[in-house]
Amino acid sequence: MSALNEPLRFDARALLTAGRAAKVTLVGAGPGDPELLTLKAARVLREARVVLYDHLVGDEVLDLVPSQAHRIYVGKQARCHTLSQAAIIDLMLRLARSGRPVVRLKGGDPFIFGRGGEEAQALARAGVPFEVIPGISAAQGAAASAGIPLTHRDHACSVVFATGHLRGDGEQRTLDLDWELLARPRQTSVIYMGVATLPIVCEQLIRHGLPPDTPAAVVERATRPEQRTIDGTIETLPALACVHEVQSPALIVIGAVAALHAELAPALACAGD
Amino acid sequence: MSALNEPLRFDARALLTAGRAAKVTLVGAGPGDPELLTLKAARVLREARVVLYDHLVGDEVLDLVPSQAHRIYVGKQARCHTLSQAAIIDLMLRLARSGRPVVRLKGGDPFIFGRGGEEAQALARAGVPFEVIPGISAAQGAAASAGIPLTHRDHACSVVFATGHLRGDGEQRTLDLDWELLARPRQTSVIYMGVATLPIVCEQLIRHGLPPDTPAAVVERATRPEQRTIDGTIETLPALACVHEVQSPALIVIGAVAALHAELAPALACAGD
Repeated sequence: MSALNEPLRFDARALLTAGRAAKVTLVGAGPGDPELLTLKAARVLREARVVLYDHLVGDEVLDLVPSQAHRIYVGKQARCHTLSQAAIIDLMLRLARSGRPVVRLKGGDPFIFGRGGEEAQALARAGVPFEVIPGISAAQGAAASAGIPLTHRDHACSVVFATGHLRGDGEQRTLDLDWELLARPRQTSVIYMGVATLPIVCEQLIRHGLPPDTPAAVVERATRPEQRTIDGTIETLPALACVHEVQSPALIVIGAVAALHAELAPALACAGD
Repeated sequence: MSALNEPLRFDARALLTAGRAAKVTLVGAGPGDPELLTLKAARVLREARVVLYDHLVGDEVLDLVPSQAHRIYVGKQARCHTLSQAAIIDLMLRLARSGRPVVRLKGGDPFIFGRGGEEAQALARAGVPFEVIPGISAAQGAAASAGIPLTHRDHACSVVFATGHLRGDGEQRTLDLDWELLARPRQTSVIYMGVATLPIVCEQLIRHGLPPDTPAAVVERATRPEQRTIDGTIETLPALACVHEVQSPALIVIGAVAALHAELAPALACAGD
């Protein structure tokens, strides 16, 4: 990765006029099951020459990339970033400016908690042309395979996606969530990356007025063969998740629809027939 | 469609034991661009024998279905339902019970405003095995192709999907939205099917405390070649949408991220290079 050590040369106007930078394609790899890639994402991966990918991208998805292409792992796991976000953007810009089309592959959808917005902004500011291919987000994958509709006329007329990621360092680490938003009735709330913070999330939701018996479920490794769904209420789910040793990646679904899992799962289990 | 005229025979237990009902697959057709189908959805369509599809499903997607398969159009457009929801469920159950695997094809994602939840429940209650294949939802298609990230660390730490569909009949028609939820700061709100109700939506959001200069955009026919994006603020967007004669299908994106369209679109426009 010597590209990282070169000095940054930046002249957006000249590049736009010369039109020499290659295109960067931000691609959503979907929730895990490689068959949940879009046709467009699969095509772009099969034609790729340089791919920068995150840790949530599975091997079967990467296998679509031609063997002679460069696959560059850029991280990021919580507290273990391989490259900083600034370095990823720097690398993307340098590769595009050197005339190499870049595929930037992210788990889920690049524009839902994928930091694709920041990367798209950096590309636009640098005059590098880009395209975005959406992906099935983890919430959608989990909903479909666990049998939890995200909206339902009888139970939820809206759905909210939020992230349970801690921000800051050390003792300053906080969970920057809008509790009043998440505690509204008649909606579904999905918390991404919420395993570590599940007890705080449930406690805060109860404190902000959501009834303790509100159904909630945690879906671990959604759409993968080893997927597990644990359901309960916002009062019981933290203990259940602890007993079942739920691990990341997992997401939490809160709201009346979470109770439909128990009703729908038996018929879903027959789906292979 | 003589199946609709037969008397309903219903014995869930007997069916579960006999295991004779064929599988129903609820498939998301995505936002419009046929390349945004998932690989799994494309495979299931290529193998389909009976397909029940809605009006938002495009011809290119239907073209994947083998020519000898039955394609049954079941509606629904606002105020012009071809079959009622009860009749669609009845038809699905009858076909599955007669041993015919059914593909139920819906625009977007079956579990996001697709009434897939109600259909899945009816199938589970009748003991008919089913599977759900998620699809790229209209909000994701619009975000990717208009250059509007749905979340962004600087602007929106959560995203809400709601529907602007009117409920009820005649003068009782109301917009059943949680205005306090949608007027929260630092979030993105996406209103599906909101063209007709755009003036009410914007007026209510201002009344519930969202600053009138909050960025907002309407994306018409997202991901189709004729896609248009009109941006403004919640104060100006209703007039702009009127002047530009925005038509359904379209969705409204509200929040600071909507202003990124102007910044990102010029670089997106070069994407074909």
